[in-house]
Amino acid sequence: MLRLGFDVGGTNVAAGLVNEEKQVVHRLSERFPRGEGGEGLAGLMQSMAGRLCREAGLDVSGLTQVGVALPGTLDPERQTVLHAYNLNFHQTPLAHLLRQRFPGARICLLNDADAATWAEQIAGALRGCETGLLLTLGTGVGGGIINQGRLFHGGLGRGVEPGHMPLHLGGRRCSCGQRGCAERYCSARALACSGRQAALKAPDSLLAQVSHGRPELINAKTVVDCAMRDDPTAQAVFRGYLEELSSFLASLVNLLDPEIIALGGGLGQSGEFLCAPLRELVAAKCFFQSCGQIVPAELGNDAGIVGAALAE
Amino acid sequence: MLRLGFDVGGTNVAAGLVNEEKQVVHRLSERFPRGEGGEGLAGLMQSMAGRLCREAGLDVSGLTQVGVALPGTLDPERQTVLHAYNLNFHQTPLAHLLRQRFPGARICLLNDADAATWAEQIAGALRGCETGLLLTLGTGVGGGIINQGRLFHGGLGRGVEPGHMPLHLGGRRCSCGQRGCAERYCSARALACSGRQAALKAPDSLLAQVSHGRPELINAKTVVDCAMRDDPTAQAVFRGYLEELSSFLASLVNLLDPEIIALGGGLGQSGEFLCAPLRELVAAKCFFQSCGQIVPAELGNDAGIVGAALAE
Repeated sequence: MLRLGFDVGGTNVAAGLVNEEKQVVHRLSERFPRGEGGEGLAGLMQSMAGRLCREAGLDVSGLTQVGVALPGTLDPERQTVLHAYNLNFHQTPLAHLLRQRFPGARICLLNDADAATWAEQIAGALRGCETGLLLTLGTGVGGGIINQGRLFHGGLGRGVEPGHMPLHLGGRRCSCGQRGCAERYCSARALACSGRQAALKAPDSLLAQVSHGRPELINAKTVVDCAMRDDPTAQAVFRGYLEELSSFLASLVNLLDPEIIALGGGLGQSGEFLCAPLRELVAAKCFFQSCGQIVPAELGNDAGIVGAALAE
Repeated sequence: MLRLGFDVGGTNVAAGLVNEEKQVVHRLSERFPRGEGGEGLAGLMQSMAGRLCREAGLDVSGLTQVGVALPGTLDPERQTVLHAYNLNFHQTPLAHLLRQRFPGARICLLNDADAATWAEQIAGALRGCETGLLLTLGTGVGGGIINQGRLFHGGLGRGVEPGHMPLHLGGRRCSCGQRGCAERYCSARALACSGRQAALKAPDSLLAQVSHGRPELINAKTVVDCAMRDDPTAQAVFRGYLEELSSFLASLVNLLDPEIIALGGGLGQSGEFLCAPLRELVAAKCFFQSCGQIVPAELGNDAGIVGAALAE
């Protein structure tokens, strides 16, 4: 079984060969061929596959599965990219284009958050659970659901969009056109924004100092680092963020009550500094007064590749 | 197969024999034995079962299943009522108490919203769907989830509580201790409250007139009836309610994207007057710009009995 996974982002296309132990054994990254459409991407993927296989001393015709994780909404049969705004892909029959280039392989398209969720279920933080949730805290808030031990593709097969559930209906404007979506309060970007505002108001704070008078350089990691170093300004920002995120997690617990919630994206790397206070807050806020595990995701940047390569 | 279902509320206990066609063929209702605990309820159920069976010319020892739907949180094995605040039941081993009284029957306890959801799946508005949702719009907002054609009991087996997902975090105080829960904006009670406030401000409105100077008598049905009769005050209240409810449904669509959402409780009886505008609003608000069916629930007051009697 020779499996290849691609993780397509608006900037780069990452590829990796995945072995029987669910590990990425050879990897490669290229610039995303912006403006070249589905054909351009499929062509790049073919050349990347060729290089990876050569590197591994394997024949590309031996590939049994080629999986693609990408930031977009797929049709229910997962053959066509309906919309991927960051890639400027609309109604793109990517599975068809790949089938022409990899005639012997099973082609799998997945939303990137779904791919990461599946990877965590088979090889990471959601391992073995029947009902689990991955939330990726990055520019937005993506996520996926494991139900009955399988990836849940949404009732109509279009994926799941937890980041666009309203938390403060009528609040901050979201890219989806609505106001008050959870991702406007719970993403790494939201934490960074709060950090920048706080640094402007507290120029003597460590948070302001480490940004050398350029608060626009503050990102979520800056806030976390300064909070870890006991900067009261950063700590207040982080506490405010935890309040929002814990309310969002409590909301998901009230609906799905998952055995495990894994937190990924850049912020997931904050580990216990993020998860320990969240556990207390979510247990206190959710209807059941207790909740399943809240843990960092484990697979990091490999999640998309592994999930796509091993998609069912 | 002789199946008996009970639907336990804080006021009445309804019981019904359910036939192979999933219909209630004999029914009975008694006052809930308040203050008499689990023993009192189990005793009442035994006497009700006896009377129903005599009425039907059947032997109570022939009962193959006795199911109970009740407003509370059960333990994961559905043997014990952990909390049912309206019944003042806490840590009540109701399955055990019933097993003593119905030794030949399979005993099933279900949350009442779960029972209604299951009933709609096997015999009502959610018939045949793989992923479906029932929301009951009453004093609160209850609900249940069908996933892969089966009742979803929550990842940890404690049921689902959609009404306590925040919609306006930090907003109106909720009985669960949090602020801004969906049920404070989307329940029939919330619609009635808005109706009362509007009637006080517009004493010349039809809404105020039909309440004969006693706006405290206005309930959700009053608002709907007056809105149907073109009263601008009631229509404005109803539109405001539809805005809230559609945002909540869009939130659930963004997470689960169900094939069908059925609306039950008193307000579900408003049928198309409720569902038709909701369809447009939810499609416009949800991330996918379209959604599955939104329909009235079909089983009305029988849902709890049918779902409990036929629980898996």
